[in-house]
Amino acid sequence: MLNFELLKKAQERLDSLTKPQGSLGELEEIAKRLFAIYGGNLHRTIKSKAIFVAAGDHGIVAEGVSAFPQEVTQQMILNFIAGGAAISVLARSVNAKLFVADFGVAGDEHKAPVHNLKVRPSTRNFLIEDAMTRSEATEAISRGRGLVEKLHYEHAFDLIALGEMGIGNTTSASAIIAALTHRPISEITGKGTGVSDTVLQKKILVLERALVLRKPDSQNAMDVLAKVGGYEIAGLVGMYLAAAANSIPCVIDGLISGAAALVAFRIEPSAKNYFFASHQSAEPGHRAVFEELQLHPLIHGKLRLGEASGAALAIPLIENAWKLFTEMATFQSAGVSDKK
Amino acid sequence: MLNFELLKKAQERLDSLTKPQGSLGELEEIAKRLFAIYGGNLHRTIKSKAIFVAAGDHGIVAEGVSAFPQEVTQQMILNFIAGGAAISVLARSVNAKLFVADFGVAGDEHKAPVHNLKVRPSTRNFLIEDAMTRSEATEAISRGRGLVEKLHYEHAFDLIALGEMGIGNTTSASAIIAALTHRPISEITGKGTGVSDTVLQKKILVLERALVLRKPDSQNAMDVLAKVGGYEIAGLVGMYLAAAANSIPCVIDGLISGAAALVAFRIEPSAKNYFFASHQSAEPGHRAVFEELQLHPLIHGKLRLGEASGAALAIPLIENAWKLFTEMATFQSAGVSDKK
Repeated sequence: MLNFELLKKAQERLDSLTKPQGSLGELEEIAKRLFAIYGGNLHRTIKSKAIFVAAGDHGIVAEGVSAFPQEVTQQMILNFIAGGAAISVLARSVNAKLFVADFGVAGDEHKAPVHNLKVRPSTRNFLIEDAMTRSEATEAISRGRGLVEKLHYEHAFDLIALGEMGIGNTTSASAIIAALTHRPISEITGKGTGVSDTVLQKKILVLERALVLRKPDSQNAMDVLAKVGGYEIAGLVGMYLAAAANSIPCVIDGLISGAAALVAFRIEPSAKNYFFASHQSAEPGHRAVFEELQLHPLIHGKLRLGEASGAALAIPLIENAWKLFTEMATFQSAGVSDKK
Repeated sequence: MLNFELLKKAQERLDSLTKPQGSLGELEEIAKRLFAIYGGNLHRTIKSKAIFVAAGDHGIVAEGVSAFPQEVTQQMILNFIAGGAAISVLARSVNAKLFVADFGVAGDEHKAPVHNLKVRPSTRNFLIEDAMTRSEATEAISRGRGLVEKLHYEHAFDLIALGEMGIGNTTSASAIIAALTHRPISEITGKGTGVSDTVLQKKILVLERALVLRKPDSQNAMDVLAKVGGYEIAGLVGMYLAAAANSIPCVIDGLISGAAALVAFRIEPSAKNYFFASHQSAEPGHRAVFEELQLHPLIHGKLRLGEASGAALAIPLIENAWKLFTEMATFQSAGVSDKK
């Protein structure tokens, strides 16, 4: 748990700054948690930032649930590395290191700078059989956890953002969220990368049938993850758990990143103290994640790109919340009259 | 009007970038307009940024509608300059110059670096008489316009953000918005810097009575502005008009900045092509402004500070929209398969 005394001290400081009380809204909540996570150190600066993109492919694409062909996962990894993808542009812009990891992309193993953590090339089609075995899911979590811990040892992160790439993975993420939150598939499922209304209907039918067939146990996040999840989602779960275990604030991206955060929260509820919401995406299931995690995304931009792009966009907002908290003058120091 | 050919060209480029079509949501709308404003120049970068804070005092505070004493306007100006206010911190963070202008603060004239554009020390109490004469309102607009034009000549702005400081000015802004949008005061009025429920009720009664007494002509934005507005609000109107006339994208801040944008739009409807929304504040009247201007604020953070703080927080989002648009690879250049 976060240190209650530090949270209280942060609130006192917030109320002493030259602004009406509470007028920085959600930024005040962010600053408070950062203060507790950073051990009450007002001199801490957010310098070492990283963005992780976990990649994996999905057997469920055989059902025709995605707008893009599966080879795009592979191609986009090369685009991330070459610097032309949205997340490449944003990582440069927000001065964050970009780490790309393959947890289960179809096809050959990747070479550096891609981190090759492939458990298996693509999950199985979860309409027909479990997406992963339980031990594969555990292995992917462990590899995700190991990656963040190894890189944190090298770079001492102040903040990380977690996103993904994987054709078909909004289908998998929707299944996870529906199973864990007991919500109807039709309320949770959106158009992903932009399928037609007809494909959306098919996606909903596939998901409804798959949940009936796979019977994921909503009280058991590992069971849900293995049966309808994906390697990159499991990898992200490990990353969230590593962030929490190592007191690294971590920013949730879109639907898939949110589904992974929800699984991590169900495995280790206190992990959520380290989670920061970035944006409310166009995907309806995303809202269900934040209701469960009791987080309020700052950006409402109808984003639905993934790759950690929304999380990257929120990094300057989070940095500014911290700068306001640490750099603003107090009523006393600035000689400003407080409320009547 | 913005160049339609350039808007079309921007859409074509957006759809060629390595992302699902439309997946950058509101950022795509921002990039499109910037492309048209910047004359179709993909090599343009957003380097020269400025934040303007217009200050003024309000006679209506005599009715006890604000949580803070009037001298805070004066004191906060010194805090802006000294670097301790929220906007001082944010201006440094987003690498924008901060310009503070006094259009009607109670008390003595300010010295440099504050721009002394004072028309009169404080408006009159608009429960009793018109807040400004028509010629005073026109003069404040002209001074705001002149300030932006003079500084633009020196600094060649790529982007500006417009905010304010003035104890009592949410009352004035609510009156403007209610008058111009024909909405009931009770739907428009919020707690400003954080008044109690009792004071909020008083604020609503004062506003309802003032609108009956002043009879602002909803078809005449200058009449509304002079009767229930403020010097800093009029100054901002001039700044918005200057931005539009000089093709400078300008970012709207909170309720008061929004009310000024609405007045500018009513005076010169095409000006809105240059307006960019930043955040949706906690003030209910803010929503009415964006409905009228057909803009969608990116940040939903329950901010209610003013000073251009929300606009400043949105600057990195707008910059990133432009970087994504200009720096991302296309499907062709990256060798990524497009939609099936």
